Amino acid sequence: MIELRSDTFTTPTADMLAAMASATQGDDVYGEDPTVRELEELAAHTLGKDAGCLMPSGTMANLACLMAHAPRGTKVLVGRESDIYIYEAGGASVCGGLVYEPIDNQPDGTLRIADLVEGCPKDPEDPQFALPAVVCVENTQNRCGGRILSAEHLADVRAFADDRGLRLHLDGARLFNAAAGSGRTPAEIAAPADSVQFCLSKGLSAPIGSMVVGDRELVAKARRIRKMLGGGMRQAGFIAAAGIVAIKTADRLVEDHANARRLAIGLADIPGVEIDPEVVETNICMFRVTAPGWTLPAFFAAAREHGLALAELGHGRARAVTHRGVGARDIDDAVDIVAKVLASGKGVA
Amino acid sequence: MIELRSDTFTTPTADMLAAMASATQGDDVYGEDPTVRELEELAAHTLGKDAGCLMPSGTMANLACLMAHAPRGTKVLVGRESDIYIYEAGGASVCGGLVYEPIDNQPDGTLRIADLVEGCPKDPEDPQFALPAVVCVENTQNRCGGRILSAEHLADVRAFADDRGLRLHLDGARLFNAAAGSGRTPAEIAAPADSVQFCLSKGLSAPIGSMVVGDRELVAKARRIRKMLGGGMRQAGFIAAAGIVAIKTADRLVEDHANARRLAIGLADIPGVEIDPEVVETNICMFRVTAPGWTLPAFFAAAREHGLALAELGHGRARAVTHRGVGARDIDDAVDIVAKVLASGKGVA
Amino acid sequence: MIELRSDTFTTPTADMLAAMASATQGDDVYGEDPTVRELEELAAHTLGKDAGCLMPSGTMANLACLMAHAPRGTKVLVGRESDIYIYEAGGASVCGGLVYEPIDNQPDGTLRIADLVEGCPKDPEDPQFALPAVVCVENTQNRCGGRILSAEHLADVRAFADDRGLRLHLDGARLFNAAAGSGRTPAEIAAPADSVQFCLSKGLSAPIGSMVVGDRELVAKARRIRKMLGGGMRQAGFIAAAGIVAIKTADRLVEDHANARRLAIGLADIPGVEIDPEVVETNICMFRVTAPGWTLPAFFAAAREHGLALAELGHGRARAVTHRGVGARDIDDAVDIVAKVLASGKGVA
Amino acid sequence: MIELRSDTFTTPTADMLAAMASATQGDDVYGEDPTVRELEELAAHTLGKDAGCLMPSGTMANLACLMAHAPRGTKVLVGRESDIYIYEAGGASVCGGLVYEPIDNQPDGTLRIADLVEGCPKDPEDPQFALPAVVCVENTQNRCGGRILSAEHLADVRAFADDRGLRLHLDGARLFNAAAGSGRTPAEIAAPADSVQFCLSKGLSAPIGSMVVGDRELVAKARRIRKMLGGGMRQAGFIAAAGIVAIKTADRLVEDHANARRLAIGLADIPGVEIDPEVVETNICMFRVTAPGWTLPAFFAAAREHGLALAELGHGRARAVTHRGVGARDIDDAVDIVAKVLASGKGVA
Repeated sequence: MIELRSDTFTTPTADMLAAMASATQGDDVYGEDPTVRELEELAAHTLGKDAGCLMPSGTMANLACLMAHAPRGTKVLVGRESDIYIYEAGGASVCGGLVYEPIDNQPDGTLRIADLVEGCPKDPEDPQFALPAVVCVENTQNRCGGRILSAEHLADVRAFADDRGLRLHLDGARLFNAAAGSGRTPAEIAAPADSVQFCLSKGLSAPIGSMVVGDRELVAKARRIRKMLGGGMRQAGFIAAAGIVAIKTADRLVEDHANARRLAIGLADIPGVEIDPEVVETNICMFRVTAPGWTLPAFFAAAREHGLALAELGHGRARAVTHRGVGARDIDDAVDIVAKVLASGKGVA
Repeated sequence: MIELRSDTFTTPTADMLAAMASATQGDDVYGEDPTVRELEELAAHTLGKDAGCLMPSGTMANLACLMAHAPRGTKVLVGRESDIYIYEAGGASVCGGLVYEPIDNQPDGTLRIADLVEGCPKDPEDPQFALPAVVCVENTQNRCGGRILSAEHLADVRAFADDRGLRLHLDGARLFNAAAGSGRTPAEIAAPADSVQFCLSKGLSAPIGSMVVGDRELVAKARRIRKMLGGGMRQAGFIAAAGIVAIKTADRLVEDHANARRLAIGLADIPGVEIDPEVVETNICMFRVTAPGWTLPAFFAAAREHGLALAELGHGRARAVTHRGVGARDIDDAVDIVAKVLASGKGVA
Repeated sequence: MIELRSDTFTTPTADMLAAMASATQGDDVYGEDPTVRELEELAAHTLGKDAGCLMPSGTMANLACLMAHAPRGTKVLVGRESDIYIYEAGGASVCGGLVYEPIDNQPDGTLRIADLVEGCPKDPEDPQFALPAVVCVENTQNRCGGRILSAEHLADVRAFADDRGLRLHLDGARLFNAAAGSGRTPAEIAAPADSVQFCLSKGLSAPIGSMVVGDRELVAKARRIRKMLGGGMRQAGFIAAAGIVAIKTADRLVEDHANARRLAIGLADIPGVEIDPEVVETNICMFRVTAPGWTLPAFFAAAREHGLALAELGHGRARAVTHRGVGARDIDDAVDIVAKVLASGKGVA
Repeated sequence: MIELRSDTFTTPTADMLAAMASATQGDDVYGEDPTVRELEELAAHTLGKDAGCLMPSGTMANLACLMAHAPRGTKVLVGRESDIYIYEAGGASVCGGLVYEPIDNQPDGTLRIADLVEGCPKDPEDPQFALPAVVCVENTQNRCGGRILSAEHLADVRAFADDRGLRLHLDGARLFNAAAGSGRTPAEIAAPADSVQFCLSKGLSAPIGSMVVGDRELVAKARRIRKMLGGGMRQAGFIAAAGIVAIKTADRLVEDHANARRLAIGLADIPGVEIDPEVVETNICMFRVTAPGWTLPAFFAAAREHGLALAELGHGRARAVTHRGVGARDIDDAVDIVAKVLASGKGVA
């Protein structure tokens, strides 16, 4: 099966397995696991921040950051197409008493500053308004097709945040893809943000875990919240050992990007597929099936029968995500399968 | 001062004051105030529901209904231009652990069914999605200019709610304006909703209080929540006595509507004012000041100097609300003041 | 009916009704009701604080103070026999994400400092512990029989709070009873606390309302929270007018205290009643019915048949509360009724 | 270092490491990790329940169960000495809007039924009371010294819960110790509970993870909540593989119990140590240092210098926990160290 539903299907490399097998063990809930501490320092250093904290998932990493930044009853300005808003089960409202204020994402993943301004009440003294406390950006932006936010855009959002006294959180689940795709360092990308989360799983291929990085006060708060949410893990050194390898080998993400571009170009030639290869900047291809008679579920089922796994990602679009588990030859096969399926004309009438 | 900022500035009538002075008193927290019970029965009966509960404000009435309908962690589908979303300080997230999912309001105040459908996750089994539990409509719709939702629209939303297993809450802060403006009875307007709140203050002129009505189970839940929020009031018979008069004399709202239309027509003739009198259906006029050189704050300040109080209501619009405290002559004076102010040319450059 | 179930059954005096009828009216949600502002200043001044805020109930007043003091996830150290813990529906956990840490009340209503210390985690750095943020005291202490907390005790709790960096909230629902009963001024009693709530209803006889007082920052926060909870009321001047009279005539509470003592002494002479008149310091008598064959419900029902209303108040005790609505003759009648009922021997076998 | 601070310091066995290295991998967030599914079925089967769900920690397992059982605003009846109340950072109030009602634990870890009854309001219709929804028991009871709750006690609590319409949650962090110590099967111990959590770490020696088991509806709810809290983990098969071995080899806990008894008997002979070996039923020894001049911190520091790690566990007691990492000889050495330290007389004056 050529697995393109998500880069979360990556499995650890031989180097990761070796590191896991030989990891020093301690109880991280007591703060005594040296491998975890090494990972947290590496993550912080790599992103140019003071401190880091291992989390069991990106969902918890985002949630802990939002709760650390924003007092009960304040607002989170967040992209309407962001993973935080759509895929994280509303945790900030449930656990944090926070109000999501969704801001329309532009097609390139950015948030218009004017829309952010509109999300701020005219009169902060008026108690009928919940007040914003934090802005979230997502880089790369998943549902906009893995788009990379430009340094200029991040600077603009930072300036907006400063102007309003807000904190800036970066959901960098695929931050290393943004780095690999833009040539900037992870630290450059993370610089404007007060807090960053990034995933050790996904393209980086570690089995479990995400990191929060930021200044010491933020990370200390997030660590407290982690315990309350139930994210404190005992012998987490196993996870951390793989995470260390993941960060050190992040450069290879450029291969995934080349494969995604190769896939996009291949798909663009197939009648009944709508895709713009120019906007495929990282490891995500979004496309539409316009061939008459096909629904997405029917198309996915037919592709799966031929050995290709794809999934829907909102607004009637298919998403294909490249990762370490698929090579250039798999990509060519995937293109062939899509062409063959759509040529068969066996869509749902 | 001609007070057009809001109909919340109404003060009780002589009949209300008389009723208040002679109200039987009991401790409503013990359920022993006969005037409150009479009001609750009158409200329920008038709206065609089984039971009612007095609340200190419309904000609490809405909040208690949302919390009664929606378990922790579910979503509230609500108009992006609705008072619940904008002016109630995010209470449903803070107190209820609920997630607001704002749906764009159309210019006539309605919500497109397609947008409501889009607000529901494709796969309810997938735990990454918060699931909707309740839909809110607002009738009349304040920020869309006091627009009346049609019976057809409410039926469509009801059908959508039934199809998805959702509850329907009606924020009827100005429900009696919708009735007076449409010729339908309050009960007809309330019929599609599982819960309704309406305000005894605003156009109905009682000093304090809003009502929740619905079936007995809903009202019992809302009453429990009221206590927890701190809305249980002791000798609430004073408030209730005024509320009873307010409901019984609601027919007079047609005067406010005539005055609003008169105002709109007058304003439409003034150069530098942009308004469509055709969409003024109830007691709210929304207009823009397009005269060169004027900002809204400067315009409001100048109008206030001439004895006319107006206020901003989002998106750079001025709002004028008619109510019992302003008569036809006041309206004519208000038009004259606006004309004089804008003719003076003394805007902020 | 001699109503001794609670002092919440008081109804407004003629002076209050007159003040209500002539109250200047404005919309307090806009901050434009002069009577409310006068009340808020009077309340603050009387308690020696900077600012005040009118609330629809003591429950909301307490809740708003706790939420203003304590960030999400912190602990409220509160008497296990306190009204906040027992009778306010857990609002601080629901709306505030706060954890109640109940501390045993001593028979005189105090909290042992050693118990408060025990309620504080040994290691504040350890994330497994929720950290205290605020201590609550209740004066007079209702369920301990209306006991007055001594100035020494309040100073001790204040010193504990200072030592631990905690805020101190005083639930002074019956603070004016504490003043009348101790000869101290309300301001002296309020002095150690960062925030105080007191009820305009109960013994003070106003129909509705409680006040929060404290420094300007605290009151501003509580006012924001009030709006979110739904406690903003429109023409609240009616309520405020009665409240002003209530505060100015608080001295008469000494009559209620004399009546409570008279009642206690009378009851102490009745076989089958267990009561210590020495601990009746204010307007609350707690007693037990030890006459063989009687359950409390049977005793209450029999007393009610003879025109006396009493109620249970925890741990199998009856509570009798004196207030403006019962005079010395009523008290004597009440004693006679209790004696007669118990002498009848008609308890439930 | 002889590590007796906690059994959370256990590291995986060679069998576990081998199972981890060869575990089949899938993305458990997609429900596609076969090892996780195998673990979940094994856990459910072993405890006699329908379904199971892997959690990153016992804290999250407990929290998810409480949130699954108890609607917002209800109460959790829980031992005052329980880990849920003391060591889990108040998560049920923060994330669930739940109120903890701590019930005194008896010295043997049980809750008196009379105290549970007292925790239930007399009048469930009265909205001033938060209503209980769930009772928690802890077996073995950590802070009471690893005591085993008897089948009779659990049946009594179950009957109480049934009588009041409450759910029963069992915090079985050390449930397999209760089984090994009592000769009952895990399923017998779990039978009275609607939900159970148990830890794969601690005595069972897996590196990470706890299990929730219960009926299908409960587990489905807990799984949704897990995602919201951020406990969904990707390639969790690594963790699960160790967990499977842990459950299958749980019988060896009897060794830890023998060692704890051996330790208790040894300590009982040391002057200046207060311990009752008779109450050491599982792997936890609680003791006091009564030798003059010693504080606990000074004693722990001195013991640590001699190679023995111990920790405080409330009320001025030391706790020693046996586990796979300490053998009989270590125990004898530990006794010698304690004797030597106290004999040295070098306590803090």
